[in-house]
Formats: sequence, structure tokens, C-alpha cells
Amino acid sequence: MDKLDRGLVQVYTGNGKGKTTAAFGLALRAIGRGLKVYVIQFIKGGFDYGELYIVDKLPNLTLKAFGRGKFIVDKPSKEDIKSAEEALSLAESVVKSGEYDIVILDEINVALNLKLISLERVIGLIKNKPRHVEIVLTGRYAPNEIIEIADLVTEMREVKHPYNKGCQARRGIEF
Amino acid sequence: MDKLDRGLVQVYTGNGKGKTTAAFGLALRAIGRGLKVYVIQFIKGGFDYGELYIVDKLPNLTLKAFGRGKFIVDKPSKEDIKSAEEALSLAESVVKSGEYDIVILDEINVALNLKLISLERVIGLIKNKPRHVEIVLTGRYAPNEIIEIADLVTEMREVKHPYNKGCQARRGIEF
Repeated sequence: MDKLDRGLVQVYTGNGKGKTTAAFGLALRAIGRGLKVYVIQFIKGGFDYGELYIVDKLPNLTLKAFGRGKFIVDKPSKEDIKSAEEALSLAESVVKSGEYDIVILDEINVALNLKLISLERVIGLIKNKPRHVEIVLTGRYAPNEIIEIADLVTEMREVKHPYNKGCQARRGIEF
Repeated sequence: MDKLDRGLVQVYTGNGKGKTTAAFGLALRAIGRGLKVYVIQFIKGGFDYGELYIVDKLPNLTLKAFGRGKFIVDKPSKEDIKSAEEALSLAESVVKSGEYDIVILDEINVALNLKLISLERVIGLIKNKPRHVEIVLTGRYAPNEIIEIADLVTEMREVKHPYNKGCQARRGIEF
């Protein structure tokens, strides 16, 4: 199909399940239409996610994951900062190229919240994007400055979660 | 992979964007793990969605859509009720068979809210499911009785939506 007439900026944030999966579902819909999608995962690199095993089989979907496969619980390490910056640099060049119709920046909100990357650079990335490129930002703690410049924002609000009942993350469902 | 040890009941509801896409993202993750997924769409049949064009190419993912391709704005017609009941009958047999690890009932909450189908039957479907089967219910207006028996509930809350600024639904993004 033709490129989007106008790409918007979407944000999926909040403490509930469904942010990354919504972004992947959106990717699936888009490639069903022949659009090209690039997913850049901040922080998540090294984790073993189910979607990684199917992405290679899908046309027009590229995925690159950064990070060291650990949740950052204390102070981020230099390595955490370096890989998040690499992810952002890739995001900037992918968006700028205009080759991809949708660029998904998965967990970038968390990287911003942890101050692994510069908010000003992310705002610059969004403001200078080619008109037809859609940008999707996921992760808890989306900064207000990002919400302000976004066109579409959904908060995934946790109403009930089995982790709270002591249920472990399950392969194929939570990862 | 082996079947899930215990399948849960997930609900994605609320007025924000991301409910159906989260369910499809979950399907993608699950088939990446070799799980089998069946998606039954209540109401949406006949609509032209981007995901329909890619689903055929994915292994272990089956989709069947019911409905007449129109939003029900006034009183539901006999046809609306008939197709929603057919969708529910299929859902009952798919869940009962235990052959599918995840059964996604897309927009079933809307069908319940419009009283196209019986709440008691849906509760029965959930309560009598085989232990390993995961059930995912999507759509606005999830009834309280469904939320009560669900294990995981996320409310997709609309913080900002471009429709409110007069932006039309876009091919490849919203459908």
C-alpha cells in the first residue's frame, strides 16, 4: 500500500499488561497492509520473549533489541546507559530515513524515566520525523512532555493481575 | 512447547485504543512459543482489518469472524443476535475441545453489553474450561461479573485520541 498520509505519535503507558503486545498487534495489522515496521526494544535485549521466535518469519518487520537482559533495579550501569543510547541512535536514523512506515520504540518510556537517554533528544526525534512516519512509544512512566506532544495516548491500567496472587510469569503468555 | 500448566482468564476493556491489538500481540507471542491460538471475533465480521491479511501466513493461528460488518448503533437486529450466538457456540466447542492453548474472544464484551448473548453462558464457558486453556476477552464495557471471575484485567484508558480532533480511522493503523 501507499505510505500513510500522515503518521501520528502513539503512546502506550501505565502499569497494566498489554503495552508491548498492543504495539506488536499494531505491527501485525500494519504488515497485513504491506506497511514496513521497525521495532527497537530499549532495555529488553537478552530477555527471551516469545515474539522473537516468530518475527523472523514475518515480512516487512524488523526487530532490534538493546540492553543486557536484566531488569534495572538499582542504579543503571554504564552499560545500561550505553545500550539505551545505541538504541536511540538507531531510532533516530531509522525514523529519519523515512523507509519505515511505523517505528515502535518499545520500553523507551522506562529508559526515559531511568534517565538512560535524553528527553530532549527523544522530543527532537519526534518533532523532526518525516510526515508519513508513525512513531509508537511504549512503557510505564511516560513523561508528561511526551504525552503532551503525542496524538494518541492509552493508559493500560491494571485492574487485576495474577502476579499479585503469587502467580509466576508464564512462557508464551507473559514472555 | 508443552501446554500451559494453568490457563488464566484475561480481560482487556476500557475506551482506549489497544484492546484487540494487545490480544493479537499476545497471539503472536504465543505462537512464537509453539502454542495454538484460536481467535473468534464477535461483531467484527465483514470489516476489513489489516490483521486478516497476515493471519493466514501464521502457523497455529486460526481466526473466524462473525457479524455483518456494521457497527450496531440502534437496536440489534435478529441477524446480529444470530451471528453472535453462532460465535458463542463456536467458542464453547473450541474451548471445550482443549485443542487450543489460547482462545481469544474479540469484542465479546460488546456483544454481552448489547445483550446479543447470554452472560450466564459466557460465565459457564469460563468456569468449565479445561485447566490448561487460556481465555482472553476483549471489548469495551466488560460486565462486572466477568471482571470478578477473571484473573487478569487491564483497562485501556483513553488519555488522548486523534478521533477527537477530527482525524479519520487510518488503514493499516486503526483497521
